[in-house]
Amino acid sequence: LVGEKETARVEAFSDGVFAIAITLLVLDLKVPRDLDGADAVAHALVHQWPAYLAFLTSFATIGIMWINHHRLFTHIHRVDHGLLIANVLLMLGVTLVPFPTAVLAEHSDRPFAAMLYSGTFLYVALAFNWLWRHARRGERLLRADFDDEAVRAIDRAYAGGPLLYVICFGLAVASARASELMNLALAVYFGLPHRKGSIAD
Amino acid sequence: LVGEKETARVEAFSDGVFAIAITLLVLDLKVPRDLDGADAVAHALVHQWPAYLAFLTSFATIGIMWINHHRLFTHIHRVDHGLLIANVLLMLGVTLVPFPTAVLAEHSDRPFAAMLYSGTFLYVALAFNWLWRHARRGERLLRADFDDEAVRAIDRAYAGGPLLYVICFGLAVASARASELMNLALAVYFGLPHRKGSIAD
Amino acid sequence: LVGEKETARVEAFSDGVFAIAITLLVLDLKVPRDLDGADAVAHALVHQWPAYLAFLTSFATIGIMWINHHRLFTHIHRVDHGLLIANVLLMLGVTLVPFPTAVLAEHSDRPFAAMLYSGTFLYVALAFNWLWRHARRGERLLRADFDDEAVRAIDRAYAGGPLLYVICFGLAVASARASELMNLALAVYFGLPHRKGSIAD
Amino acid sequence: LVGEKETARVEAFSDGVFAIAITLLVLDLKVPRDLDGADAVAHALVHQWPAYLAFLTSFATIGIMWINHHRLFTHIHRVDHGLLIANVLLMLGVTLVPFPTAVLAEHSDRPFAAMLYSGTFLYVALAFNWLWRHARRGERLLRADFDDEAVRAIDRAYAGGPLLYVICFGLAVASARASELMNLALAVYFGLPHRKGSIAD
Repeated sequence: LVGEKETARVEAFSDGVFAIAITLLVLDLKVPRDLDGADAVAHALVHQWPAYLAFLTSFATIGIMWINHHRLFTHIHRVDHGLLIANVLLMLGVTLVPFPTAVLAEHSDRPFAAMLYSGTFLYVALAFNWLWRHARRGERLLRADFDDEAVRAIDRAYAGGPLLYVICFGLAVASARASELMNLALAVYFGLPHRKGSIAD
Repeated sequence: LVGEKETARVEAFSDGVFAIAITLLVLDLKVPRDLDGADAVAHALVHQWPAYLAFLTSFATIGIMWINHHRLFTHIHRVDHGLLIANVLLMLGVTLVPFPTAVLAEHSDRPFAAMLYSGTFLYVALAFNWLWRHARRGERLLRADFDDEAVRAIDRAYAGGPLLYVICFGLAVASARASELMNLALAVYFGLPHRKGSIAD
Repeated sequence: LVGEKETARVEAFSDGVFAIAITLLVLDLKVPRDLDGADAVAHALVHQWPAYLAFLTSFATIGIMWINHHRLFTHIHRVDHGLLIANVLLMLGVTLVPFPTAVLAEHSDRPFAAMLYSGTFLYVALAFNWLWRHARRGERLLRADFDDEAVRAIDRAYAGGPLLYVICFGLAVASARASELMNLALAVYFGLPHRKGSIAD
Repeated sequence: LVGEKETARVEAFSDGVFAIAITLLVLDLKVPRDLDGADAVAHALVHQWPAYLAFLTSFATIGIMWINHHRLFTHIHRVDHGLLIANVLLMLGVTLVPFPTAVLAEHSDRPFAAMLYSGTFLYVALAFNWLWRHARRGERLLRADFDDEAVRAIDRAYAGGPLLYVICFGLAVASARASELMNLALAVYFGLPHRKGSIAD
C-alpha cells in the first residue's frame, strides 16, 4: 500500500482521459463542404441534428462520470494493484465513448447503434461498481476519517446504476431514439442538485 | 462542502479540457495534397488564410478564457455540486469551440457561420457568469481571506461580457468578417496588460 | 539536482502523454458509412473485429505501461538531465503506439505489421530499462528511504521484459496473429494481481 | 502578484499543451490502404520515410522545448498578467508545430515547407526569450533564493537560440533537407548531457 501521493497520480491520469474523451467528441461534428450556396450549407448543418443530440448526451454522461469519479476519490486515499487495474478498466469504457457516439450520430435510428451506445455506458456503470467495491472492501483504501453515511449513500446510489443502463439497453431494441433520450435524461437527472448520495455536496 | 483538494481537481480537469481544445484547433489547418508544382502548393497554403484567421481568433479567445478561469479559481477555494455542474456546462462551451471554428474557416463569409461562432462565445460568457455568481453567492465558496476589491472588479468585468458577444452576434448578420474581427479584437483587448479587474495581476 | 517538485512535473507531462495516446486509439475504430440497410452496417461493424482486437491489445499494453511508470516514480524522487532525456525517449515510444496499432488493425494478417507492432513495444521495454537503470545507478535519484527489496524486485521484473518482446517480434515472422495474441497475453499477465515486483502493491 | 499555487497551474496547462501537441504528431503517419499485396503495403510504409523524419525532428524539438520550460519554471515562482500572456503566446507556437510538420512531411523537398517549419521554431525561440526576460526583469517573478549563476547561464543559452533558427530559416532557401537536418541536429545537441546552462542539472 502506498499513500496519498499515489491517489493524486491516479486522479491526474484519469482527469486526462476524461478531458480528452470529452473533447474528442467534437470531432464527430462535421463541417459541410462542397455545397453550393449558403442555404445548402445551413441546411446541412441543421440536418445533422442527430449528431448534436449524440454529442450532448455523451458530453453530459462523461461529465457526470467525471463528477462521480471525483466524488469517489474524495473518500479513497490509498492505492493498491487491484485499484489501479479497476481504474484502467474504467478508463477503457471512458475512452471508448467517442466510438459508439459516432456510430449513433451516423445511424441514429438503428437499434444496434443504440444498443452499442447503452452497452458502453452499462460497462462503465459496472466498472464503477467494481472500483468502488474494491476500494470499500474492509475500508482498507478509504481515508481514515471517512464519513460512514456518505459512503453508504454511494453504496445505495451505485447499486441501481447498472440496472438503469440495462433498461436503456433493452429499450434500444424497441426504439433507438427512446433509448438515447433515456440516456440523456439519466445524465440530467444525476446532475440535478441536492440529490443525497449521488454527488459531492 | 469539501476543501482545497477538490478545487485542485476541478482545475486539473479544466486545464486538460482547455489544453486539448486549444490544441485541436490546429487540425483545421489542412495540408494541400495532390497539387502539381511548388507554386500551386504555396498558393493553396496562402489561399487558406481564413482558416489561419479563425485559428488565431479561437486560440486567443480560448487563451483568454483560460486566464479568466485561472483568475476565478485564485478566489474560489471550495466546491459544491452546483459549482461542478456550472463548470461542466462551461467546459461544454470550451470543447465546442473547434466546431464553429472549422465552420467559420470553411465558410468565412457566411453570416450563419459567424453567428454560430459568436453564439458559442456568448454561451461561454454566460456560463462564466453563472459559475462566478454561484461561487460568489454568500461568499460560501470563496477563500476565507478573499480580496473584496478584486472580487468586485471581477463582478464589474463580467457584467459586460455577454453584452459584447451579443453585439458580435448581431454584427454577424450584417458582416461575417466584421464580427470575426470584433471577436479577435475583444480577445486582444482582454489580453492587454494592466486592465484592473479582468485578469490576475 | 532538483527536488521533489521536479518529479511531480515529469509525472504530470507523462500522465498527459499516456492519457492522450490511450485515448487516441479510439480514432482507429471506424464508423461504417454509405451502406444500404441495417444488416450491411451491422455486418461492417462486426467485420472490423481485427481493429477491436488491436485496440484492446494496445489499450491493455499502454495501461500496464502507465502502471509501471507510476510504480517506478514511487521510488524516484529526484530529477537530473539524463532522467528527463530518458523519459522523453520513453514517451517517444508511447506516443508512437497509435500508428503501429492502426497498421495492425488494417493489415492484421501481415507479418510486417505484427513486427512493427512488437518492435514498438520492444523499444518501450528497452526505454523503461534505460530509465530505471539511470535512476537506480548509485541510488542518487531514488528517495532517501527507498525499499531495497522492492527496488530489487523491479530489477528482476525489468530484466526479462525486452526478451519477451523479442520473442513476440520473432513470432511475428511466423504468424502475425499469434504474435498479437502473445502481446495481449503479456499485458493481461502483467496486470494479474499479487505478482511481487511487477506493480505497486 | 499571486504566489506559488499560480505557477503550478500555468505549468499544468502548459504540460497539457506540450503533451497533446507531441502526441498529435503521430496522426501524420498514414496507414497505407487499398493496396494489393504485402509488398505494396510494406513499400508504401517505407516510402513515407520523410514523414518519419519530420515526426522525429518535431518530437525531439517539442521534447527539448518541454525540458526548457520545465527548467525555466524551477526558477520562476510568481505569476503576473504579463507572464500569463507570454506563456499563452509561447503555447501558440507549440500547438502550431503539428501543422508545419505535416506540410514538411508531405512536401519535404520544398523550400517554403522548410521555411514554414524553421519559422515556427524561430517564433518559439523568440517567445521563450520574451517569457524569460519578462520573468527575469528586476527578478520580481524569480524564487527568492534563486541561483544567480544558473540564471545567468540561461541568459547566455537563450541569447543564441533565435540566431540558430534564423540560420535554419536561411538554409531552407538553399536546401529544404539540409534545413530539416539542422533542426534535428539542434534538438539532439540541446539534449546532450552536461551542457551547463541549457537544461536542469
